[in-house]
Amino acid sequence: MSTASSTLQNKINPDYCASGVWAPLLMPMQENLQFDPGRMLALGEELLETGCHGLAMFGTTSEANSFSLQERMAALEHCVKGGIDPAKIMIGTGCCAYPDSIRLTQHSIDQGCQMALMLPPFYYKNMTAEGLANSFSLVIDALNNDQFRILLYHFPALSGVPITPELITILRERHGNIIAGAKDSSGDWSNTKQLLDAFPDLAIFPGTEHLLLDGLEHGGAGTISASANLVPTSIRKVYDLWLQNDPDVKQQQDYINGVRTAIQGTPMVPTLKYLTSLRLKDPDWTRLRPPMVNLTEAQSQQCLSAVQAAGLDLS
Amino acid sequence: MSTASSTLQNKINPDYCASGVWAPLLMPMQENLQFDPGRMLALGEELLETGCHGLAMFGTTSEANSFSLQERMAALEHCVKGGIDPAKIMIGTGCCAYPDSIRLTQHSIDQGCQMALMLPPFYYKNMTAEGLANSFSLVIDALNNDQFRILLYHFPALSGVPITPELITILRERHGNIIAGAKDSSGDWSNTKQLLDAFPDLAIFPGTEHLLLDGLEHGGAGTISASANLVPTSIRKVYDLWLQNDPDVKQQQDYINGVRTAIQGTPMVPTLKYLTSLRLKDPDWTRLRPPMVNLTEAQSQQCLSAVQAAGLDLS
Repeated sequence: MSTASSTLQNKINPDYCASGVWAPLLMPMQENLQFDPGRMLALGEELLETGCHGLAMFGTTSEANSFSLQERMAALEHCVKGGIDPAKIMIGTGCCAYPDSIRLTQHSIDQGCQMALMLPPFYYKNMTAEGLANSFSLVIDALNNDQFRILLYHFPALSGVPITPELITILRERHGNIIAGAKDSSGDWSNTKQLLDAFPDLAIFPGTEHLLLDGLEHGGAGTISASANLVPTSIRKVYDLWLQNDPDVKQQQDYINGVRTAIQGTPMVPTLKYLTSLRLKDPDWTRLRPPMVNLTEAQSQQCLSAVQAAGLDLS
Repeated sequence: MSTASSTLQNKINPDYCASGVWAPLLMPMQENLQFDPGRMLALGEELLETGCHGLAMFGTTSEANSFSLQERMAALEHCVKGGIDPAKIMIGTGCCAYPDSIRLTQHSIDQGCQMALMLPPFYYKNMTAEGLANSFSLVIDALNNDQFRILLYHFPALSGVPITPELITILRERHGNIIAGAKDSSGDWSNTKQLLDAFPDLAIFPGTEHLLLDGLEHGGAGTISASANLVPTSIRKVYDLWLQNDPDVKQQQDYINGVRTAIQGTPMVPTLKYLTSLRLKDPDWTRLRPPMVNLTEAQSQQCLSAVQAAGLDLS
């Protein structure tokens, strides 16, 4: 390795289980709402070729919780059989019931995945950190695999169950390096900053590329962001420019901030599927599982005007 | 039927799919946290003998969302094989993923159940009434059974997804009498009253016996309340005294209010399991699945003092 590239590498903690730009893969559907294997594989391959370091499958953006365990396992198997390197897939496996989390996580290990992105059990609210930790521990103990890595998924607006510093501390004490990072989808820089300061050994991924550069400058690992389905190359460019100490990074961060703001005016997953259908000239891409619904005509117009004003080229 | 009993019957709408006092069955566990079939069946039988009209299995109090689908189906099968009339079991079948809801609900029909108590898909928040209705409709259409009845489960503090009057209206328009009622676990009389006024044909069950008498006097169907695991006879007495136009009903309602207030000072399911373990002199009854944890020593003492002050006899 040259001195130059060593210097670049050293900007990211080499012990992070993962780093860079990860896309929480949108899940295309057939008319009967079963997942569409062909379109799924095509998008996954495209995102890896056009900027993403990896794919986060079956998080919020993949409509994971609208699919049964069997469906999620079948989708992962299809991606791996289709040739996507399972080391580039971070799989969402955190369920309300720990036996389900064990089953999904073990399956992903069997498929060759090296990391899971785990929601806490999210039905019961106001649980203690100890109680939440006990649920993760039942999963980790059942896996009995000290090579596998877990990223904790903090998305309090949807799960209603925060991943607190207290919970992370308990889990690190119990399980050491198996607890390897966190995705912070609070959208709140003060929370991300708190995690970065408190846990410098953990790979912390802001859940929005708004916070990519701020995160990187404070030891963050990159971003796992829904928008990476739409603008992987643009988001990746921020990461690469930062690695190269290129001052243009700020301007590029401003550009992706503009796109992000434009798509945030309407519901995220329906918006991304709508824009993907335009980009790929494929109306079937707009299908969603309930409880999500498609954008209204007015929302579609609003969204399209906003992304065009932000300079996004959908051709 | 005598004139007297006809008069009594007429106090409850005869078209309600269910009425009276239903216990959301606590779920006992073995040391390995698998459900304990023997203790489960024993408690279910006891509750039906000592006051409950029926059992609501696999709602919040049963720790339903901490069990896999397979576990929930096995528990129901054990109850039915053990001799509990499936018509007296209202089963919780509302999952985040509609294929899971279809599977659980069809299984309960196959076991002879006549009603399900369904949560909305509860991961994604701020969904439209139409989107939520679409999820229920996919289940109802798949069942294709106009005899089966669904009660909608409103528990916004845990699910984060309210069952709104708008949603009920859409579902009644689409599915008529299949949408037969609702459990209102908001604990908010103004919400229960709104549902009773807006949907006089629906069997509305307040989720706490605090509101039993108020509910009955405004056309409510009874109550489905966690405390029925502990004081089924006392809660039933309110229902029976009300049916009999007995003025002592108010005093009895005051008594059960006191017990309810006493057990509400500590987390509900751990509290009920603790008190059940005392009542049955069976320490194994305290086991819980994560993310729940047992009461601390201080909480146990607080709880015990409170219920004793409320006049509860645990011997």
